[in-house]
Amino acid sequence: MTDTRNLTRDALAAMDAADPLAPLRDEFDLPEGVIYLDGNSLGAAPKAAMARAERLIRQEWATDLIKSWNTAGWYELPRRLGNKLAPLVGAGDDEVLVTDATGVNLFKVLAAALALRPERRVIVMEGSNFPTDNYMAQGLVDFLGRGHEIRFAEKDEIMDAIDDTVAAVCLTHVHYKTGHLLDMAAITEKAHKAGAIAIWDLCHSAGALPVDLNGAKADFAVGCGYKYLNGGPGAPAFLFVAKRHQEAARQPLTGWWSHKAPFDFTRDYAPAPALTKFLTGTQPITSLALVEAGLDVFLKTDMAAIRKKSQALTGLFIDLADERLARFGVTVATPRDADARGSQVALSFADGGYPVIKALIERGVIGDFRAPDIMRFGFTPLYTRYTDVWDAIETLAYILDSGLWREARFRAQDAVT
Amino acid sequence: MTDTRNLTRDALAAMDAADPLAPLRDEFDLPEGVIYLDGNSLGAAPKAAMARAERLIRQEWATDLIKSWNTAGWYELPRRLGNKLAPLVGAGDDEVLVTDATGVNLFKVLAAALALRPERRVIVMEGSNFPTDNYMAQGLVDFLGRGHEIRFAEKDEIMDAIDDTVAAVCLTHVHYKTGHLLDMAAITEKAHKAGAIAIWDLCHSAGALPVDLNGAKADFAVGCGYKYLNGGPGAPAFLFVAKRHQEAARQPLTGWWSHKAPFDFTRDYAPAPALTKFLTGTQPITSLALVEAGLDVFLKTDMAAIRKKSQALTGLFIDLADERLARFGVTVATPRDADARGSQVALSFADGGYPVIKALIERGVIGDFRAPDIMRFGFTPLYTRYTDVWDAIETLAYILDSGLWREARFRAQDAVT
Repeated sequence: MTDTRNLTRDALAAMDAADPLAPLRDEFDLPEGVIYLDGNSLGAAPKAAMARAERLIRQEWATDLIKSWNTAGWYELPRRLGNKLAPLVGAGDDEVLVTDATGVNLFKVLAAALALRPERRVIVMEGSNFPTDNYMAQGLVDFLGRGHEIRFAEKDEIMDAIDDTVAAVCLTHVHYKTGHLLDMAAITEKAHKAGAIAIWDLCHSAGALPVDLNGAKADFAVGCGYKYLNGGPGAPAFLFVAKRHQEAARQPLTGWWSHKAPFDFTRDYAPAPALTKFLTGTQPITSLALVEAGLDVFLKTDMAAIRKKSQALTGLFIDLADERLARFGVTVATPRDADARGSQVALSFADGGYPVIKALIERGVIGDFRAPDIMRFGFTPLYTRYTDVWDAIETLAYILDSGLWREARFRAQDAVT
Repeated sequence: MTDTRNLTRDALAAMDAADPLAPLRDEFDLPEGVIYLDGNSLGAAPKAAMARAERLIRQEWATDLIKSWNTAGWYELPRRLGNKLAPLVGAGDDEVLVTDATGVNLFKVLAAALALRPERRVIVMEGSNFPTDNYMAQGLVDFLGRGHEIRFAEKDEIMDAIDDTVAAVCLTHVHYKTGHLLDMAAITEKAHKAGAIAIWDLCHSAGALPVDLNGAKADFAVGCGYKYLNGGPGAPAFLFVAKRHQEAARQPLTGWWSHKAPFDFTRDYAPAPALTKFLTGTQPITSLALVEAGLDVFLKTDMAAIRKKSQALTGLFIDLADERLARFGVTVATPRDADARGSQVALSFADGGYPVIKALIERGVIGDFRAPDIMRFGFTPLYTRYTDVWDAIETLAYILDSGLWREARFRAQDAVT
């Protein structure tokens, strides 16, 4: 915990100057005069993305046309990018595919998990999770119609919710709202002892902190390409299938890319070996190819360095919030233990989180709001500076102190978006 | 049928000069010296695509960042592009979404169809169809595990295969290999008389010929964005749900974009009204946005004009193939009745379709090969010229006459791709 009372902006500028990750900020095309603390929702644009898109559209699509499926490696992108992403999440070669959307991938791996535990009917999930996983699971359960039950448990209840009726434990590693980090290794171990399959959603942890899927013995995982991985708006997601499940596992979205001989055009489905059967069909190549521009930035550093800076940034934000914002009724809703949180900080402000965020955005500090009262700030060590933290808190304090947010509340009511 | 014996290239050049669609060729970024007859597999790049990508990456993503979900209309793209595509396939407003991949959409609408006919267990499909639809249906049936059966029927057997045990008839309108066009209205009528749901895959017909989903009373449809619609490699696909089914229909891939209040982040799923419940989750925005560049070209003409030129191009190709290629053993595998085919022509050459296509591509005429013996050529009236047809046939005749293809066969065996 920093003694923030004697801290100065100059001291933080010196930390930025000494920061070994500081040069990576230049890998991104960031708008002037903006402090972007929403990379946990949409990551910033790597400068390489524009050149990649231009090559893809002018050369690969317009000029080389159909042959680019082979010559430009389009067909291999899910596997090749999966292998590039794997080290960031503690996976091995041929355990990760970059493909489809997070929800579609969750459907595939959850269906696969249930099929591996055919006698069991319970799925443990966190009710307060970002709801798309819960919705996908509910859709799957309804569609199957075999009496599966989703047992919702909040973070402290999860261990107790796992018993020998559970087919799958399906949890998001870092909570989208609070930033609370679940203990993947302990929960996975408990799941395995109960005979259940452990599925991890890494949407808010891939690229934000070191993840060790194989160290934790995770069975399946999914995650998002467009948050901390900076893959572009709505970028394709990823899925992980542990090697030990690749032979037996089956998934239901059996498009032609998952066939053992897709170019034989046979009538009947036969699954491809190993991980490949978790593909579905033709991928949106332009969006998929841009994911690589984001992944390539991670090759210039490592997740330990990113985690160290992430904890420093979030810790500084929390300490400054305590010192300067608590008197306005703002409280920290994210774990103060740096090892128990991801790379984001949630501030609770019951009087008006939404208008404060609106006023903040109008002043060029981008965070976001999650109902009913959470102001959410993501810290991306690849491009966020210590002085950004200082300036964001200064702006927040000014808005709260001046009452400007009450004016913003009025405008917010007029806004349709 | 043209009397091709007295036809000259000059006469075709005059037809190109008089062609009302000729100016649209300038809307595309086409490689020099290439005759591209594979737009039925990957459509050519509209010139507008590059500018759209640049605006999307530099302005909407890099500069405006997260707010572009609203200010750049990202969130509304599936609906807005769906309404733009709807007239091309005879659908009304709010009946079409541009979203996800064809196979994923097929899974959604087939699941919806089976749920509308819960007592029935038969799905009629064409065994020789491009197999991804069959694979997806097989995956769905296996996953459901309720004893559904896929009854495969070839084109002349389809009507007889439809009886009152059939839940859904799920067919591709234009055959991917032969170009044979099924009678959508007659088959749909037969399906309805039998109490079945009719699902149409428009992958090889959307943008290629006028499609009248509502005129034929089709129930559901899916289709591809990257073939005749020129949406870019692996571009997101589309789905159609007839208005009369939008209230009752349910689909199982219930991601947050299909929720009735996605930004309330409630725990439990509740379907959005009408068509919106057929969305799933966050879309690959870069690929999705580029679909519009392809759709905008269609605003400058109409499907009747496209069909007229398409039939002239394919008819000319067939007539010239008969006159100049039959003596080498090449036969036409596509219906000679212009009203019974799509916008592609298949030539059968049992002696070596693959090496002929290889030799053809080496000379800048791009078609493709489909095992065991089909050389496939797509004719895109937006950018294909009558002289292209002439030149393609000339090149084919030269390759067959000179025996050059036997040399290509040798090289083909060496090729990995």
